[in-house]
Amino acid sequence: MARNDHAAQFASLIGAANVLTEAADKAPYLVEWRDLYQGVTPMVLRPGSTAEVSAVLAHADANGLKIVPQGGNTGLVGGQIPVESGEEIVLSLGRMNRVRGIDPEGFTITVEAGVVLETLQREAEAVDRLFPLALGSQGSCQIGGNLSTNAGGTAVLAYGNTRELVLGLEVVLANGDVWNGLRALRKDNTGYDLKQLFIGAEGTLGVITAATLKLFPRPKKLEVAFVGLADPHAALALFSAAKAQAGPILTGFEVMPRVGLEFCLRHLAGARDPLAGEHAWYVLMELSSGTDAFPVRDLMEAILGEAFEKGLVEDAAFAESVAQAQAFWHIRHGMSEVQRYEGGSIKHDVSVPVASIPAFLDAAMVAVGAMVPGCRPVPFGHLGDGNIHFNVSQPVGADKEAYLARWDEMNALVHGIVHAFNGSISAEHGIGRLKRELLREVKSPLELDLMRRVKAAFDPNDTLNPGRVL
Amino acid sequence: MARNDHAAQFASLIGAANVLTEAADKAPYLVEWRDLYQGVTPMVLRPGSTAEVSAVLAHADANGLKIVPQGGNTGLVGGQIPVESGEEIVLSLGRMNRVRGIDPEGFTITVEAGVVLETLQREAEAVDRLFPLALGSQGSCQIGGNLSTNAGGTAVLAYGNTRELVLGLEVVLANGDVWNGLRALRKDNTGYDLKQLFIGAEGTLGVITAATLKLFPRPKKLEVAFVGLADPHAALALFSAAKAQAGPILTGFEVMPRVGLEFCLRHLAGARDPLAGEHAWYVLMELSSGTDAFPVRDLMEAILGEAFEKGLVEDAAFAESVAQAQAFWHIRHGMSEVQRYEGGSIKHDVSVPVASIPAFLDAAMVAVGAMVPGCRPVPFGHLGDGNIHFNVSQPVGADKEAYLARWDEMNALVHGIVHAFNGSISAEHGIGRLKRELLREVKSPLELDLMRRVKAAFDPNDTLNPGRVL
Repeated sequence: MARNDHAAQFASLIGAANVLTEAADKAPYLVEWRDLYQGVTPMVLRPGSTAEVSAVLAHADANGLKIVPQGGNTGLVGGQIPVESGEEIVLSLGRMNRVRGIDPEGFTITVEAGVVLETLQREAEAVDRLFPLALGSQGSCQIGGNLSTNAGGTAVLAYGNTRELVLGLEVVLANGDVWNGLRALRKDNTGYDLKQLFIGAEGTLGVITAATLKLFPRPKKLEVAFVGLADPHAALALFSAAKAQAGPILTGFEVMPRVGLEFCLRHLAGARDPLAGEHAWYVLMELSSGTDAFPVRDLMEAILGEAFEKGLVEDAAFAESVAQAQAFWHIRHGMSEVQRYEGGSIKHDVSVPVASIPAFLDAAMVAVGAMVPGCRPVPFGHLGDGNIHFNVSQPVGADKEAYLARWDEMNALVHGIVHAFNGSISAEHGIGRLKRELLREVKSPLELDLMRRVKAAFDPNDTLNPGRVL
Repeated sequence: MARNDHAAQFASLIGAANVLTEAADKAPYLVEWRDLYQGVTPMVLRPGSTAEVSAVLAHADANGLKIVPQGGNTGLVGGQIPVESGEEIVLSLGRMNRVRGIDPEGFTITVEAGVVLETLQREAEAVDRLFPLALGSQGSCQIGGNLSTNAGGTAVLAYGNTRELVLGLEVVLANGDVWNGLRALRKDNTGYDLKQLFIGAEGTLGVITAATLKLFPRPKKLEVAFVGLADPHAALALFSAAKAQAGPILTGFEVMPRVGLEFCLRHLAGARDPLAGEHAWYVLMELSSGTDAFPVRDLMEAILGEAFEKGLVEDAAFAESVAQAQAFWHIRHGMSEVQRYEGGSIKHDVSVPVASIPAFLDAAMVAVGAMVPGCRPVPFGHLGDGNIHFNVSQPVGADKEAYLARWDEMNALVHGIVHAFNGSISAEHGIGRLKRELLREVKSPLELDLMRRVKAAFDPNDTLNPGRVL
């Protein structure tokens, strides 16, 4: 069957208007904002229902076609971009964006894969509930992609990764079979928990088309502080004290270095320095409570006051309004994007046991500085989860291409240090295409073999996202 | 190879003293306390290390032997009892009971499968931490069994099922291969999350030999109240109010009927009625906080005071000491065991969406009463999780065998009602042998097929716990 015949067949299944073949129409689906990948595809398919996804996959699987599922196209490891050789077809879930149902009393919501995360957050707020998943790209990323990558973000500390927020899934398998695993049960031990396989599988085992997710009481009281400290050791000590005293009330603990804040002040609209003086490191700390009875502000002041007396904290600003709290978070959420304007940036998304964070940062910053004198490490992220985005911007004035050419070399250096701390080379971004080769180095042959057995059991023809993960 | 030759071979691998072949030695491993199953086995193997488990499975898998893994033998669905025909060998993990390491600062502990749950709880307390999993059989159940059944218990409301408490696993596969998935990371997205497959697989995909588990801040303040109410509708209304006001501070919400309390007063050592008058239903409600700053008692009194004014609560007793709090919990934890002394009891471990609990109970209690006039339903358990142990004791003076002969008939009746509420026929006890046939009725052919593909990929010779789950 020729390419045009396939396009015609898909047009008959989902409508000609939803089969994009013109270069201009396809373009937005073929680049990602870091400009690390430039894909090529014969067509972009935009099904509008589970039945249409099923029909598309049935035809593709029966005809040896390769399918790359794509959500909001905010992935950071190239998993959603078709390969340059041009034989992969993009399956965009964006048109499947309905909220199928919401149950405030049962604290659940059922949505389709194409619902934008920010929309999902608002739907929950509208019924006085919280959907806690929050990340920098929440204005454009889609829940289907969040589920397929087991997204992390800034609320993992209190609410867990995306995996922990899932009660049920609807999945279309490679051959078009539809598995209806949409359940709203808090406890269900009836055989293998199949949904766990699709969460974080990056679209290689099936295409998630809908999910039933947990909601939580909407925080009635929220306190955010922007804290200046001398180093990560002080940050860890502050975290330990805060967790011991606040427990589940501690809903955010993000760390960032001075250089990261300076990037935001230069390139992020509306960003202002929350503190008068300069500090080497900063922590954004959030406490929130679903009950008015909890003296959240008192606790925040007690924790920081104690830390100040111990010399752990140099200065701290309390958000005195919702707007100010959002301004503090605006800086944190902008931290990743602003690095684009400072030349080349070599990325690492790593995790180590929480208590090892300071030692890891000490070792890694010294090592990359020795490898590329003048480079500017911007390690930031979720200290409370042991997850640091160890990004390193090029030296000022250096040649971008020459710097980025050392990407693999620096990765090897940093990942070697991560390995020494028994850490992970992909805490929340996944493997995709970017880290596929690395996976072979960090996983045992047995573990890789077990993964391949699962892939073969669910997608024997290697139709879904071939060459990603495995 | 003859049976004796296999016994000799196993003796050479794990020591003759750890191969039990005498009837008296095997007996404790062949019965479970509900007396629903009486197993037969040529031998019970008691390996003392991961390497020994590996050697045992390698020999069994290569010789077509069938292995039944067993922990504390407290399972309620017959999964851990060898079949009556006598060809299954029991693999007891009880000798693997070492704590391999504990990291209070990182809030993790690594233990072997044979560690008794109560021991694990104490190990955490010794370093001022909490391991939240708690259930009636915690004095004898082992963490390996808890993991293999994804045990629930009374702390799921605030801390999640056993699955949510797992960071890493060590598993011996059917052919003896050892997968080292012991990690202490809060975030790790490097390929498929294989550990999720073994959790809740009831020993059919591999034998869990060790786990790295999450610890939490130990509650500094704890308040327990024993509440009398008119019906489950009042209990649900109280739960909704409590969750909205207390959020994650609400760490326990258990419901039980008057008849269950009476069973405890008759048969449970040390049990006393916490309230002066009689009430049709009771709720055990617990609030706990890791911080002294939280006014837990005030919140408990506010929630119950408000509910009392609304007429939801008839009476309530506050635990005025740790001993009294334990006495309240003693009643709840004894609720399952005491049913043994009231003749035959037909069991159901079901879940429905939380908001459907009252309607489900109304329907199910009327239905079983119509089927067996005079039967005594004792529905109790985790209202906050939507999980009810819908157990039905025989009419006073009825013939036990005749009553139990209607087990399947009553199961079909109750499960039909569960199905109407989109619920689960096994919320936390699993499938084992007891519910294997039922599974075929409630799962789609596709879902059963997907499970079989996974089983075939991990245990192609059907060596591990054959005939359980699938």
